[in-house]
Amino acid sequence: MKRYMQNIHRVVSYVPGDQPNFPDMVKLNTNENPYSPAPGVQEALRQSEVEQIRLYPDPTAHELNAAIAKAYHVDESQVFTGVGSDDVLAMIFQTFFRADLPILFPDITYAFYPVWCDLFRIPYAVQPLNDQLEIVPEDYTRENGGIIFPNPNAPTGAELPQSAIAYILEQNPESLVVVDEAYVDFGAQSALPLLERYENLLVVQTFSKSRSLAGERIGFAIGAPELIRALHDVKFSFNSYTMNCSALAAGTASVRDWAYLEKTTEKIITTRERCKQVFSKLGFRFPDSKSNFLFVTHPEVDAHALFEALREVHIFVRWFNAPRVRDYLRITIGTDAQMDQLFDFLRDYLGKKRG
Amino acid sequence: MKRYMQNIHRVVSYVPGDQPNFPDMVKLNTNENPYSPAPGVQEALRQSEVEQIRLYPDPTAHELNAAIAKAYHVDESQVFTGVGSDDVLAMIFQTFFRADLPILFPDITYAFYPVWCDLFRIPYAVQPLNDQLEIVPEDYTRENGGIIFPNPNAPTGAELPQSAIAYILEQNPESLVVVDEAYVDFGAQSALPLLERYENLLVVQTFSKSRSLAGERIGFAIGAPELIRALHDVKFSFNSYTMNCSALAAGTASVRDWAYLEKTTEKIITTRERCKQVFSKLGFRFPDSKSNFLFVTHPEVDAHALFEALREVHIFVRWFNAPRVRDYLRITIGTDAQMDQLFDFLRDYLGKKRG
Repeated sequence: MKRYMQNIHRVVSYVPGDQPNFPDMVKLNTNENPYSPAPGVQEALRQSEVEQIRLYPDPTAHELNAAIAKAYHVDESQVFTGVGSDDVLAMIFQTFFRADLPILFPDITYAFYPVWCDLFRIPYAVQPLNDQLEIVPEDYTRENGGIIFPNPNAPTGAELPQSAIAYILEQNPESLVVVDEAYVDFGAQSALPLLERYENLLVVQTFSKSRSLAGERIGFAIGAPELIRALHDVKFSFNSYTMNCSALAAGTASVRDWAYLEKTTEKIITTRERCKQVFSKLGFRFPDSKSNFLFVTHPEVDAHALFEALREVHIFVRWFNAPRVRDYLRITIGTDAQMDQLFDFLRDYLGKKRG
Repeated sequence: MKRYMQNIHRVVSYVPGDQPNFPDMVKLNTNENPYSPAPGVQEALRQSEVEQIRLYPDPTAHELNAAIAKAYHVDESQVFTGVGSDDVLAMIFQTFFRADLPILFPDITYAFYPVWCDLFRIPYAVQPLNDQLEIVPEDYTRENGGIIFPNPNAPTGAELPQSAIAYILEQNPESLVVVDEAYVDFGAQSALPLLERYENLLVVQTFSKSRSLAGERIGFAIGAPELIRALHDVKFSFNSYTMNCSALAAGTASVRDWAYLEKTTEKIITTRERCKQVFSKLGFRFPDSKSNFLFVTHPEVDAHALFEALREVHIFVRWFNAPRVRDYLRITIGTDAQMDQLFDFLRDYLGKKRG
């Protein structure tokens, strides 16, 4: 083998998540929004001029950042945007988690946290959720080089109350605490108001879920200007132009339409609450989700077998081959019609099992 | 100072390149294309459906990669795409330049090469261009952990002949040789045909210059399937979704229209050759550029003073505050009308200096 092949960066080979594409499918596997983005988004994309596309995009994302700042009642100097919240989070890991102390996050959580730790050589220590699959705030008081957790947590959907987040911030004045709020718009309470009291807080959100813009890749962080400045410095030091002009235009139009966000998230919340009742009646159990998905388990059902059976009929959900959660399925909240199609199948499936 | 602020990743604070925005400006500072992208691009963006935007983009970029493969007569397994060639190049540095030996690149070249080396802790040794600002192939025969250079080189515009590239590949069977062809479509010869003889070659190109798509951020690499597989493995291991659906649609439409690419690059080449004559008559000297810019110097003119004088009248060019090139300006080839506006100013400026 040539030397250049011996020396390549070896990683665990990863096959991107199943992105099936059947006309009749019910796609409940990647927490996408079943409703369209705000009407202004399509309009903004249609109006984007070729004159704009031939030029480099604005590296500072000024228009989008200003629109986000206005919508969230913060200053533009408190906003950092990136190519999806994955890009924003990776930049945060790279910029801030550089102490020789382990960073802390839950054992059951977003799968990319340990990946970025390995990539950037950051030590970490996972903190187990309790038996109800909840974060235990007291676990986050040991010495650490930083703290990160999603709220609501993924893939459980469970919300950590704002008082518990305040407690973690209070106990860790020397650490940066990152609250990853990818799913916060579906009824959970944002940590943003805590920014007034805690300078060591960074809140990360995304346009991929509540704003129906997964295809455009837009995420953002809000925090103290000195934190945001450090993120910009690192970003600009090695890649100036990342968000393209379509993402900037789509994101700006989206964030300006708060009423549409409320309307569509309300619809999903209503469907979710109805689904909780149906799942319960069918014998499923789940943490009380405040997100756009439910993390369900059933005492009589093998989760992986059900996952496969659903796939057969083109209903796609998510199963994680990981300790503690092998008996669960993560199911995105789709439209009422999609969920009814799922429930019809489940009634039949459970009936056959029992019969 | 809090511990989390003491530990942040310190970088040389970088202010993104001047992206001026005046209605009357002549923008010749970032090597953008003065002509619109292919007509199919605007059409593809207009037709992009909201249904598509609410879903995650195809992480494998299959449609775009297949279109690139077809256009360049290679297999899809030989194509890797990223968010501009900066993203592709950074991924290459991260994936392949991991030997403990220094990688080699010219002293006067693309400014991000040393930046990525510092970021990924890669040792490097710069090889000086000769007095005519040309790459000396023999300099690339010393022991190394990899080789990279742009061809044509930036910011000189000078082309290294294919025979010299073959010589470098021949001398380095154990090293990966990356030819960064951001500007190749403006009349230089691509190294792509050398892929048939050399497995240690990666060719990188971009849609930002010849295809007028700087705003959409699309770059690609072509090489042996085992090299491309390694790039995909590293990419997917830490960020699956980077190219958004607009970039995928725009790129696919663009690469399918080869005739338009030829037509617009021909126009720019014609303008460039005319500009060479005018610059010569005005007393400027420059390497013989095969790119969409000229790197000019004048024995009687202070380059930085001229840069400032041009800026005053809203003609924007690029000046580098770096050793050996302080007396030069990099000037993008715009439309004939834009170049004439520049020449009118230069005649006046030089006349005043002499008079």
